[in-house]
Formats: sequence, structure tokens, C-alpha cells
Amino acid sequence: MHDVPSLVAQAREGRPRAVARLISLVEGASPQLREVMAALAPLTGHAYVVGLTGSPGVGKSTSTSALVTAYRRAGKRVGVLAVDPSSPFSGGALLGDRIRMADHASDPGVYIRSMATRGHLGGLAWAAPQAIRVLDAAGCDVVLVETVGVGQSEVEIASQADTSVVLLAPGMGDGIQAAKAGILEIGDVYVVNKADRDGADSTVRELNHMLGLGESRGPGDWRPPIVKTVASRAEGVDEVVEALEKHRAWMEERGVLAERRAARAAREVETIAVTALRERIADLRGDQRLGVLADRVASGSLDPYAAADELVSGLTQG
Amino acid sequence: MHDVPSLVAQAREGRPRAVARLISLVEGASPQLREVMAALAPLTGHAYVVGLTGSPGVGKSTSTSALVTAYRRAGKRVGVLAVDPSSPFSGGALLGDRIRMADHASDPGVYIRSMATRGHLGGLAWAAPQAIRVLDAAGCDVVLVETVGVGQSEVEIASQADTSVVLLAPGMGDGIQAAKAGILEIGDVYVVNKADRDGADSTVRELNHMLGLGESRGPGDWRPPIVKTVASRAEGVDEVVEALEKHRAWMEERGVLAERRAARAAREVETIAVTALRERIADLRGDQRLGVLADRVASGSLDPYAAADELVSGLTQG
Repeated sequence: MHDVPSLVAQAREGRPRAVARLISLVEGASPQLREVMAALAPLTGHAYVVGLTGSPGVGKSTSTSALVTAYRRAGKRVGVLAVDPSSPFSGGALLGDRIRMADHASDPGVYIRSMATRGHLGGLAWAAPQAIRVLDAAGCDVVLVETVGVGQSEVEIASQADTSVVLLAPGMGDGIQAAKAGILEIGDVYVVNKADRDGADSTVRELNHMLGLGESRGPGDWRPPIVKTVASRAEGVDEVVEALEKHRAWMEERGVLAERRAARAAREVETIAVTALRERIADLRGDQRLGVLADRVASGSLDPYAAADELVSGLTQG
Repeated sequence: MHDVPSLVAQAREGRPRAVARLISLVEGASPQLREVMAALAPLTGHAYVVGLTGSPGVGKSTSTSALVTAYRRAGKRVGVLAVDPSSPFSGGALLGDRIRMADHASDPGVYIRSMATRGHLGGLAWAAPQAIRVLDAAGCDVVLVETVGVGQSEVEIASQADTSVVLLAPGMGDGIQAAKAGILEIGDVYVVNKADRDGADSTVRELNHMLGLGESRGPGDWRPPIVKTVASRAEGVDEVVEALEKHRAWMEERGVLAERRAARAAREVETIAVTALRERIADLRGDQRLGVLADRVASGSLDPYAAADELVSGLTQG
């Protein structure tokens, strides 16, 4: 058993091994999961959570790394969570193309974690929010959640961020792909990376057109900006940070940040509750109490509804 | 609201309208469902439940009717439950081909009910056992559960009876069909009906062969008998009743009857419990408590696991 209060204290001091251990405890179904979650709760709510999503090849890792550099320069502590829903590996095994992140590996102000969610109970919706809580409680000012690929799971993750960044690159028919994947609805900030390539301007135009279609915005509504970057040369990255800060300020002003966080918490609580109830359903078959109750029903001393009530309340209390 | 104790008393006197009303109360999600089930429980456990299954055309209705006649001659009160999993009609609407049962319609010692289970929450597994309970509590000595067609649901129903009768007819390739449907595993008694037709003996031989394959029986084990009948002329029906009584005596002697009834009760309790838990999962989305809890999680005053516990326990307590 781990000394949870000590792990939490060490994580807040920025010790990466303590952070790693806490994430492992909340990722798996550790018996200490609830203790950890209870210890983290009062320490959460500080971090600004930014989701980054986009098709393979748009330069998500490079962009994430460039954002880390920019935030570090501003003195912020940064957490990075790289989520791959299709990979069975977890806990750092995905670092292959994360080699660009190596710049930050020795920086105590940066914590990088790769997370695979395939096979997890409840999948992405379950595991990622817990890891974000750890990074938040550990004192990160910014948590960048980078999802690999574009699909339902990525959209889900991105929609759980305070701000969602959708990345595109020229010449990949990305605009249409993005529309298909539904990520045009979730972007708060759009980034056209590799903007030194041919077709960057037409990608921006196409995107502008698509974002304008069917959207009637009021005077105080958020209009998602489109920022051109060359992340590999850090060009435009400050403008991305600026757009993020503007979105954050807009959300705080309007109460949108609190709304989004409450909605995220609601989804999280709901997912945990549904998982708990599903586990109880699975427990029914093996429960020895069922046999005892069934005998009473068969003998007529109990009706099946009362028996089911007893069984369920036994499961939910135990 | 119905006066449940009075309905139960009338049902026990054999008043068909009281029986009908009680079945309607347990079939639907009546607010009085639990009251009815509690009132019935102490009165159950008397009826001998016989399941009849077989492909369309083998003469199930005719056989059921002939069995009713035989049991009535022996002074028994008989309940008939005709279950059609594919029909949206219920409560007697299926009486089309039940015209042969008209002989018994005016007999106060017989209660006949058609039951459609499509669209029912939990389907067959949920609705039929409740109706059997009503017929049992109403004082039926024998309850014949006839299922229309052969499929997973029929096998399920038949496996919930004290004794399962599988009906076949010559010249329909029934042996092979039966094997495919898995009903060769569930028959306690086999009936080859329409035994005056060509091929009856070869059907019996085929069946004998199939039942013998792969079965190593101990000296005290039950060996399912094969009875030839011509139900439309009541030929062989007494032999079926005799086989049923033998099987019942064998089960009582060995404790198998109590085992089967406990297993049936366990499935029933489990189905009700799973349905209740599923309903609670569905309730989660609309629950106003979720919003309140989510706000507390978002503000860090509660962790999401503790919130989920509160939500679930609120739901499970009503």
C-alpha cells in the first residue's frame, strides 16, 4: 500500500515519480483509488485543460511540444497527457514519436504521460479525466491533452477540455475530413499547421467557410479563431497561446468555464456510477446471497421482487 | 387501485376475471405489482409446471387441449399459458388457433391465458414466471406453458418448467430441426404426435438414436421417454400424463424438483434485479441530483467517486 498523503505532497513538489505512481493508482482499479481521489479533490480546479486533436500527420506532437516551450517560458508548470485509444500500451510505452518531447524530459516543470485506453473499463471517458485530476492536483497550471487520431473517442476527450484545439494541415483534404469527424463542432481554436506548405491559405479559406456555414452568432458569442503555425520552427505558437488565453478569459467572463467544468464533472460522475451499477449486475451471477434468496422465493416465504430488492441493496451497500 | 387481497381470494375461488386481472397487474408495470407479488408468494409452490415446446405444425395446441381434458378427468384444476414471443398482442388476443380450447372455455376448473412478450421489459424471462405465479397461487394443480415456435426464448421458457415436454411430428425433419434448436437437451419427455402418419416410427427411431448419442446415464438417472400420440383423437394422451407423473415422482424422490424450482427462482430474482439496476442507469441522466453533485466535484469539495456513490445510493434507496 502506498502512503497517499506523502505521494500527493511529493507530486505537488513536482516529483515525477510520485505523479507517475498516482496516475497508475487511478488508471487501474487499485484498492487505493478512492483514497487517492478523495485526497486529490480539494487540490483540483487550478489547471487550465487544453485538448488538442487532429488527423495523423498534422503535427500534433510537434505542436504540443512547441506549446510546452511557450508555456514554460511564461513560467507555467505544464502537464501533457498523450492519449491513444487504440493502443494497448500505457504508462510511457508510446514514447516512440514523442522523441521531440525529449527537450522537456529533464525539465521538472513538465510532466509527460502517455496513456492507452483500450481495454480500460469504460474506456477513454473513464481513464483520462482521472489522470487530468492528478496533473491538476500536482500543481500543473496547464494540462495539454493530446489525442492520437480522429474519432469518436478523440471528440469525446476534446469536449472534456476547457478549450479544444483542432489541428489541420494543408493539402490533406483535412477540412472535409474534419467535418466528417465532427470536430468542426468542438473546436474553440483552429490551428493550420505546416503553414509554410502550399495550400495553407486555401485550407484556411475552406475552414473559414465551413465554420461560417449555418452559424448565427450573437455579438458576445465566441468566434473560433484560425491560427497559422509552423510548429517545427515555433512560428505562430505565441499566437496560439494568445488565442487560448483569450478563450479562457472569454469563458471566465461569461461563466462558461464553470459551466464546462460542471458538465465535465457530471459526465465523470455519471460514468463512474454507470460502471459501478454494471459491475453490480455482473456480480449478481456469482453472489451467494442469490442462492439463499432463491430458496426463500421457491418456498414462498419471500416474493421475487422483495428478494431482488434485498439482493440489490446488499450489493449497493457492500 | 385494486383491492389485492380480495382479488387473490376470488382467484383462489376460481373466478377467471380475478385471475385475468392479477395477471394483467403482474404483466404490466403496475404500481400494485409489488403488492400483488407479496400477496401471492405464500400461496405458491403447489402447481406442477409443465412446459410444451415444438415447431409449428406439430400440434401443440391440440396436445395441450388433450392434456387439459385428461387432467380435468382426474379432478385437477388446470392453468394454460400460451406464450408467443413474436406477437405484440396479449391477454387473449391470440385465441385464433386456440379454438380447440373452446371445449374448456366454460369450465371453471380451467384458466387459459395467451401472453405475448414482445416489447416487454426483459421479454419472456420476465413476464412468464409472474403469470405462472398467479396461476399457481390461484390454486391450479397443473400449469401448462405452451410456447409457439422453437427458438431461444422457447428453450428458455421450457427450461423454467418443472418438466419440459418436446413435441415432434413425423415427416418434418423434426429430429434435425430439434437438434439445431437445442431442444434435445431440454426435453424430459418427448412426444411424437400425429403418430398415425407415415414415418412416425422412423421419427421415434431417429429421436431415440439422437437422445442416446453422447449420453452416459447412471443407474438412477432420468431417461427421457418417447410417447407416440394422436392428440386430435386423444390417443396416447394418458401415456403422456403417466410419463409426466413418473418424471415428477423421480424429481421429488431425488430432490431435483426443489433444485429446479430454486434455480428458476434464482433466475427470476436475478432478472428482476438486473432490470432494476438497468432502470437506475437510465435514471442517472435525468437525475437532478447529478447536477448538484457535479457542482461539488467541479469545486473540489467532493471527489467523483464519492459523488457517484451518493448518486447510486440515492437511486437505489428510491
